[in-house]
Amino acid sequence: MSHPLLVRRDIDFLLHDWLGIDALFARPRFAHLDRETIDALIDLSEQLAVDAFLPHYKEADCHEPRLDADGVHILPAIGEALARYAELGLFAAGFSPDLGGSGLPYLACAASFAWFAAANIATAAYPMLTVANARLIVTFGSAGQIERFALPQIEGRWFGTMCLSEPQAGSSLADVRTRAVPDGEDALGARYRLCGNKMWISGGDQDVSANIVHLVLAKVPGADGALPEGTEGLSLFIVPKILPDGSRNDVAVAGLNHKMGYRGTANCLLNLGEGGGATGWMIGQPGRGLHQMFLMMNEARIGVGIGAAALGYRGYRHAVGYARERVQGRPPGRRRGDPVAIIGHADVKRMLLAQKAYAEGALALCLYCAKLVDLHDDAASAALLGLLTPVAKTWPSEYGLAANDIAIQIHGGYGYTRDFDVEQLYRDNRLNPIHEGTTGIQAMDLLGRKILRDDGAGLAELRARIAATAARAAAHPALGGEGTALERQWSRIADTIAALRGREGAAALDNATPFLWAFGHAVLAWLWLDQALAADALPAHSEEERHFVEGKLRACRFFFESELPKADAWLAPVVAMSDIAADASPDMF
Amino acid sequence: MSHPLLVRRDIDFLLHDWLGIDALFARPRFAHLDRETIDALIDLSEQLAVDAFLPHYKEADCHEPRLDADGVHILPAIGEALARYAELGLFAAGFSPDLGGSGLPYLACAASFAWFAAANIATAAYPMLTVANARLIVTFGSAGQIERFALPQIEGRWFGTMCLSEPQAGSSLADVRTRAVPDGEDALGARYRLCGNKMWISGGDQDVSANIVHLVLAKVPGADGALPEGTEGLSLFIVPKILPDGSRNDVAVAGLNHKMGYRGTANCLLNLGEGGGATGWMIGQPGRGLHQMFLMMNEARIGVGIGAAALGYRGYRHAVGYARERVQGRPPGRRRGDPVAIIGHADVKRMLLAQKAYAEGALALCLYCAKLVDLHDDAASAALLGLLTPVAKTWPSEYGLAANDIAIQIHGGYGYTRDFDVEQLYRDNRLNPIHEGTTGIQAMDLLGRKILRDDGAGLAELRARIAATAARAAAHPALGGEGTALERQWSRIADTIAALRGREGAAALDNATPFLWAFGHAVLAWLWLDQALAADALPAHSEEERHFVEGKLRACRFFFESELPKADAWLAPVVAMSDIAADASPDMF
Repeated sequence: MSHPLLVRRDIDFLLHDWLGIDALFARPRFAHLDRETIDALIDLSEQLAVDAFLPHYKEADCHEPRLDADGVHILPAIGEALARYAELGLFAAGFSPDLGGSGLPYLACAASFAWFAAANIATAAYPMLTVANARLIVTFGSAGQIERFALPQIEGRWFGTMCLSEPQAGSSLADVRTRAVPDGEDALGARYRLCGNKMWISGGDQDVSANIVHLVLAKVPGADGALPEGTEGLSLFIVPKILPDGSRNDVAVAGLNHKMGYRGTANCLLNLGEGGGATGWMIGQPGRGLHQMFLMMNEARIGVGIGAAALGYRGYRHAVGYARERVQGRPPGRRRGDPVAIIGHADVKRMLLAQKAYAEGALALCLYCAKLVDLHDDAASAALLGLLTPVAKTWPSEYGLAANDIAIQIHGGYGYTRDFDVEQLYRDNRLNPIHEGTTGIQAMDLLGRKILRDDGAGLAELRARIAATAARAAAHPALGGEGTALERQWSRIADTIAALRGREGAAALDNATPFLWAFGHAVLAWLWLDQALAADALPAHSEEERHFVEGKLRACRFFFESELPKADAWLAPVVAMSDIAADASPDMF
Repeated sequence: MSHPLLVRRDIDFLLHDWLGIDALFARPRFAHLDRETIDALIDLSEQLAVDAFLPHYKEADCHEPRLDADGVHILPAIGEALARYAELGLFAAGFSPDLGGSGLPYLACAASFAWFAAANIATAAYPMLTVANARLIVTFGSAGQIERFALPQIEGRWFGTMCLSEPQAGSSLADVRTRAVPDGEDALGARYRLCGNKMWISGGDQDVSANIVHLVLAKVPGADGALPEGTEGLSLFIVPKILPDGSRNDVAVAGLNHKMGYRGTANCLLNLGEGGGATGWMIGQPGRGLHQMFLMMNEARIGVGIGAAALGYRGYRHAVGYARERVQGRPPGRRRGDPVAIIGHADVKRMLLAQKAYAEGALALCLYCAKLVDLHDDAASAALLGLLTPVAKTWPSEYGLAANDIAIQIHGGYGYTRDFDVEQLYRDNRLNPIHEGTTGIQAMDLLGRKILRDDGAGLAELRARIAATAARAAAHPALGGEGTALERQWSRIADTIAALRGREGAAALDNATPFLWAFGHAVLAWLWLDQALAADALPAHSEEERHFVEGKLRACRFFFESELPKADAWLAPVVAMSDIAADASPDMF
């Protein structure tokens, strides 16, 4: 199949040769699966992404969602694509058979999702949110809530949203003001009436699913009528657009956000309770809202990473295609004769290698984390997943975007026009460092919570796995230097962490973001080395396969030579415990 | 005046306190000027930029140029703004009084231009190109050509373009195929008939100036009818849209490019000679086209740098304003109580400092180069200008864009919507690393031509100036460490250059782009240290002035701590003479 999305050989390599998805089938949960099932899922995903998601990519950008008295209208092609996605059981793929699902590993679902994200991220956002929403209800909801609200999402008939932010509460959820007042109890649980304004709601309204299930963070006022302070006061509510009796709930679309990209995903400001109160049912216990929502947020964070990686990956493939076809210039030193395809120029190959290192590396990271999701009953894997989640959210968002930037550059002026897709990929991907927690928020999570506060189990597991990779590299004829460099880098990071542990309180987090950048690059160096070792061990018979292996080895060497040295530059202010930014007077700007 | 453009105190600092523009008045060419004239020009520019350029910034983005049978129509507000620009004599500002100009230094004109670029880069592009076009004709054209084609541009009645690229000849001008056939001679010089297709012509057509003067690179066929090979075969022609007899020239608009940003500037594909041949007059001698065009290109490259810096600067100012107003979250460690303005958060201040270092640094670099233009009769200054021009084109383009990226990040989700200007600034600025020579082309110019091929006069001058700055820093109580770091960095660059000189032929250029990045950062470190020394030496210390000085000192320290260390990371593959990219097989991608 000829398309500019992902490289099928690479997906197969990641799933089978590198991550060994087949080993999961030994677990009782996945005993009904085999390699053919996985391959069929990937075949199907590639085909549907090309047939139904890719064709309306540009159209959805040109025809934004619009709001009228009936609500939000989105491009019909989006609804048609998602209907086929539902028909083929893709909403249900990751759910257990007793819920109507196929019981596939999260890793397989993530690889499937990458195709749709590459083809059309804005359309793919609807099922991503829907599946995460349904999984939260399945995990924390009552049997009645699951049947009423999760199953229709698993079937793909209803879609779901997550309603966290408010105009005054973006990154700071402690300041949520949506108020939920008790209103009795019924078969769906404790019922509440909710009033408040929810901002940035992706899929907050649309006209393609029969209903929308909003998961809403809100606070139940105390006896004095005041809302509890802090995030401990947050509870979680199911607020459907259409109530079980068929009537409209008190949820109004107050406006649509007009975005730079990602336009097919309707992004709404929702007013709850303009007519007196939206009906909602609490999930689980009061005050557990944020804890529960983190299940959805963590899944969404990995989902954002996969989307960002897929956008970067597709930009890379567009650039490779263009560089093979575009004839321009001659090698340095040759001034006469026919011009050559630009893929012959050293600087273009440097840009393509950077794209490859970013895009394939980002996808590898996300799929590595997806496999950890499947192993979450293992404590070490769960701890490692917690540690890597902020990296899986951030690194693909920053470097997928960097790959899209290079895709424009390789296209030259053409890449800056809307006649080519690379400018839209770039605009689409710019959202990813923002939503589901900005880079700065992820950095605080990584350094503050996952490293300085937690018990260190995740970090210990990471170091052990890195040491194992480095040891294998040491025994390899060509990758020993990379193994040594990797260990050296991680020992500098360990020294930095030790120094930060000695630092008093909040100041340790002053340079959390450059720490995250350094940590992220060091994680990627490890994963590139690990990929290179796996690729080099392949029985490379065909010429095509030899090129594939060369690509992995060269991207690994490129990353170690040109990218990893940046980690020390980012660590510089962290190691120096710099207060240059933290101490700056706001008046000096 | 309250606006989000440039900081007036900073412009005054750069012009007077740092670059000492007043010293230029000692030169006969500028003897008619004084400080008040310069200040009046800056007052006027700030005012007009705010009054006439800023108001249609968003509108010009929403209403792109359109093409119909009469040609290209652009937003009327663009024409109205440029009519006021002409009325106030701003097209003429930099031309000598005998041409109707004010004889202002290029430095003053560049500072003036920065205001318009910050307010509305797409509108400002028209005078930037027009002035550069007129200057080329004044420099190389005949008296008749100057009178007929340059004067109306100096008055701002006609606009100008530069027509270099063709669909098959973007970066590679040797492959230009536009054909110019002799057609007699008249008072305007040797007349030719031109046939060919010119691509990416900014301002290629519009309906606001009475005429358009195209400067067209083309080749005169030899006796055998074949076009000469290489860039030596290029000649330069004046091809007006309307001929002196009032009739339309044979120049047709074949299409408009629909861009990601920079939309107010109509960008055209022009077909010359569909009706048999467009009339053009050769400027100067045959075969001197590229040499002459480089005068315009070099000016345009600095112009691109100023525009990119100004866009980044304005994004920075928007971010400062937003960060002061947006209340969100609490300092780490404090979970209760009122939230604070986000400018209180260490990570937001880190982002603002990065923006400040990028945007103010980029503008300082461009104005430094603008002053060198005024001193071009001094051989050392001219050589230094040649060396720094690719940096002045590239560094602001890459880091102005990086500043715009951060502006979006500080705005969070709001920054990703079209309700705020920062997303448009980001889209606009993405053009700058592409046009007037991509980053890769600038890198080859810097390393290949200006360093490895030229006699080293520019580099020697640069090293001498850097040494002088470092020596002043060594004597300063607080900036000695920065002086030492600067010298250390430049000695590593010198070692790298020495090693590259020993390398055979074209392979020395394999890693020209990372070399440019490292070189650029090392230049900026020098200019930041030089600015900090100048700021710290300022007398009067009002509270506002103390904040200004703190800002310069802290941005300098930030640059040395967080940015300069990246230079070694970029040098790594250069020093290693890496062939990882150059040797990659195209089939491995």
